[in-house]
Amino acid sequence: MSGLEDGKITFYTQGAFTDLCRGPHIPNTGAIKAIKITNIAGAFWKGDEKNKMLTRVYGITFPNQKELDEYLLLLEEAKKRDHRKLGKELGIYTMDDDVGPGLPLWMPNGTIIIEELEGLAKETEEAAGYKRVVTPHIAKESMYIKSGHLPYYEDSMFPPMELDGTKYYLKAMNCPHHHKIFDAEPKSYKDMPMRLAEYGTCYRYEQSGELFGLMRVRCLHMNDAHIYCTKEQFAQEFRAVNEMYLKYFKIFGIEKYVMRLSLHDPKKLGQKYINEPELWLETEAMVRAVLIETGTPFVEVQDEGAFYGPKIDVQIWSIIGREFTLATNQVDFAQGKRFNLNFTNKDNEPETPLIIHRAPLGTHERFIGFLLEHYAGKFPVWLAPLQVKILPISDKFMPYAETVLAEFKKAGVRVAIDDRNEKIGKKIRDTEIMKVPYMLVIGEKEVAENKLSVRRQGKGDMGMLDKSAFLAQVVDEIAQRLAPAE
Amino acid sequence: MSGLEDGKITFYTQGAFTDLCRGPHIPNTGAIKAIKITNIAGAFWKGDEKNKMLTRVYGITFPNQKELDEYLLLLEEAKKRDHRKLGKELGIYTMDDDVGPGLPLWMPNGTIIIEELEGLAKETEEAAGYKRVVTPHIAKESMYIKSGHLPYYEDSMFPPMELDGTKYYLKAMNCPHHHKIFDAEPKSYKDMPMRLAEYGTCYRYEQSGELFGLMRVRCLHMNDAHIYCTKEQFAQEFRAVNEMYLKYFKIFGIEKYVMRLSLHDPKKLGQKYINEPELWLETEAMVRAVLIETGTPFVEVQDEGAFYGPKIDVQIWSIIGREFTLATNQVDFAQGKRFNLNFTNKDNEPETPLIIHRAPLGTHERFIGFLLEHYAGKFPVWLAPLQVKILPISDKFMPYAETVLAEFKKAGVRVAIDDRNEKIGKKIRDTEIMKVPYMLVIGEKEVAENKLSVRRQGKGDMGMLDKSAFLAQVVDEIAQRLAPAE
Repeated sequence: MSGLEDGKITFYTQGAFTDLCRGPHIPNTGAIKAIKITNIAGAFWKGDEKNKMLTRVYGITFPNQKELDEYLLLLEEAKKRDHRKLGKELGIYTMDDDVGPGLPLWMPNGTIIIEELEGLAKETEEAAGYKRVVTPHIAKESMYIKSGHLPYYEDSMFPPMELDGTKYYLKAMNCPHHHKIFDAEPKSYKDMPMRLAEYGTCYRYEQSGELFGLMRVRCLHMNDAHIYCTKEQFAQEFRAVNEMYLKYFKIFGIEKYVMRLSLHDPKKLGQKYINEPELWLETEAMVRAVLIETGTPFVEVQDEGAFYGPKIDVQIWSIIGREFTLATNQVDFAQGKRFNLNFTNKDNEPETPLIIHRAPLGTHERFIGFLLEHYAGKFPVWLAPLQVKILPISDKFMPYAETVLAEFKKAGVRVAIDDRNEKIGKKIRDTEIMKVPYMLVIGEKEVAENKLSVRRQGKGDMGMLDKSAFLAQVVDEIAQRLAPAE
Repeated sequence: MSGLEDGKITFYTQGAFTDLCRGPHIPNTGAIKAIKITNIAGAFWKGDEKNKMLTRVYGITFPNQKELDEYLLLLEEAKKRDHRKLGKELGIYTMDDDVGPGLPLWMPNGTIIIEELEGLAKETEEAAGYKRVVTPHIAKESMYIKSGHLPYYEDSMFPPMELDGTKYYLKAMNCPHHHKIFDAEPKSYKDMPMRLAEYGTCYRYEQSGELFGLMRVRCLHMNDAHIYCTKEQFAQEFRAVNEMYLKYFKIFGIEKYVMRLSLHDPKKLGQKYINEPELWLETEAMVRAVLIETGTPFVEVQDEGAFYGPKIDVQIWSIIGREFTLATNQVDFAQGKRFNLNFTNKDNEPETPLIIHRAPLGTHERFIGFLLEHYAGKFPVWLAPLQVKILPISDKFMPYAETVLAEFKKAGVRVAIDDRNEKIGKKIRDTEIMKVPYMLVIGEKEVAENKLSVRRQGKGDMGMLDKSAFLAQVVDEIAQRLAPAE
């Protein structure tokens, strides 16, 4: 019972302590078994420095010491793996006051990771019959009235720019632009399914208080695509997208995930959701059927659909057990009609396609944020901004180091030499900090035998290896996109 | 003498014809040797349909028949090569009313060309020591006040969006974002030159009347980069950029070009140009010296510099002799200071870098528009959206066609089968229209001998060739980015 609503004040007493509070704090103090004070803070009574200093004590309790220890370890690990800390240390991204909050700038090391992710997606999507498109980041107001983003999604959009008497909006989603490309040339059933992919950058308004590193941003680089298909093709296309998720999870070593089937809320039809009660039920049933048929573990959640149809959100857990919402796979029965899209079916009649919106890698921003934590910055070789660092013990060995550099570079490996006039110990430590997967220490013996002394990040000395054999192994590790060796 | 200024009306008489006109029409009617009526149009006297119909006659004249013929041929050729016509026919790009004027949407075939151009630039820039970055498309007003875009470039920018009480602008140039990345980590002379490249998309306001296909647009995908260097490094870096132009010109078969050295106008210092008279003269002299030293043909033009420094604009001519402004190479002495950028020099002092702004391929929009005209849509194999089309004479030969498809696909060739139930003549004609470089006709004999009957776009039959040998030849033609065979 809230004390404010009825004008009364509520006290809550537990043991000898009475609090100006609704309570209860915990059901029974007997549950307090393992305690840890996590923080203390001082404050003056009523905020006046002439008054007495009060101390606020923060603590945490668990039913047993083991659970407390696990929690504290997780906290510590999460702190070490904080993507904002690692993002700065490894030169992944930066933020700037003149650019604006929630608008990360991708530095050279971060851009390498983006381009590797793009490369993986392009390869996967090309094999799956997707075609690529490129579209502008803005469109007229009329586009978003047609799509339904205005009014259903207006709060999440940037405000308009007024140009020649017309309002233009930054795109919050790529779909309307893709619909226009679908519509630019007449289509027949032979063209279906049509899969249009784009690394599209969208802009969404999030309140400043909600912004958080790469996890909540206003600029979203999306591994996006829209699949236009017939009702008969839907189940197979939707399943193929889910399978693409699983392929990616394997590559990134994501072992724990769950699919959330997000449904509409009938009470909010016409407000939050397109007012088509029957189509909602029909498409929700179609998606549910695919999940059941494929034996995919899923949970159902009410009132979390997109405004144009039901969707699957994918929750994943990082290696330290933190939960992320990553990807999305949505069915859209509304926009095809609204944009008057059609294809000529086998009966020579125009038919509206169903549309699947999908983004298996989500946004670069969130996914790279996740990967930073997941790998603790120790990226697998294929994703590592710098893959191999050559550490000559002294200047004397620079010619050999240059030869090795040229050979590795030619094979497509990202490689550099630490040519500073520093002790080898310092060179190794600095390379460890930057989490470069392989270090090649070069001295007298390596030059004499035309070999390499190899150190693996986090694992230490691998001994002296044959140069060509080691290069072939690294090239293979990159080509196969192997997960870290740990 | 204008008749209006002094309230008098001027007549001009040539032969028996008196015109209400300032004149002269041509210095001497004796020069009229070769005439062609190009168009006629009707109009009512004073625009009233009750009045008599007048006829407006359009014509053209040259001093001799040969020049007239050449001109008419050029007109006809230019019409056939119109990038807007070809862009539609070949599925390169589309425009849409709901997106807005000057905002092309790149269809799958156009996107392939964009990605091939990007691939070429990435490869070239990586070899030249560039690093890649990715930045947002917007920034706060304060960014553009700092850069000087506001007020110097305001008329060419989109209007602001007001968010949380702050104005945000769409970026018209990538430079300020790159400066922020340069500035994100401390730099020493050892880090210089620092070359930051981005396929950045910028937005510029052009009046609707000035928009024209891909040539004048509001959305610009730019092959952009900024080079931060010391004064001592400037000449070499600037020269290297000019040499990159020449490399590209060779690849694209651009034989005629001229560099325009665009200077400031001292009268417009503080308005159109940053008010640093001495730095203008110094940097103009530096650029001029590079051009003279390298024996590069150039012309000087007053009052066409960027607001932050002198620049070189590159004019190129398409194969039919039309002129395009393509690329730009600019020196910037102003923004380094304005953004307070610096590196620690050898004397351990902070020093402001010079900045080179360069975009050798200009914007995708204009460059692909140019290439459409230059190649008349007949792209070299490496750029062609579809490189090889397999034309089975009947369904009977589909299994062999599928084998060929798989082999070519595996080798990275963009290939498709025309599996329609059509006569081979029609299949060939349709493929010719889409300007696919190679057609492989497959019938009884080809299957029996495991060969391919090859037709080259625009050149006709190349005879029956060995399958592996032909595939190797195509792969080589693509890898070497060879110009069309014509």
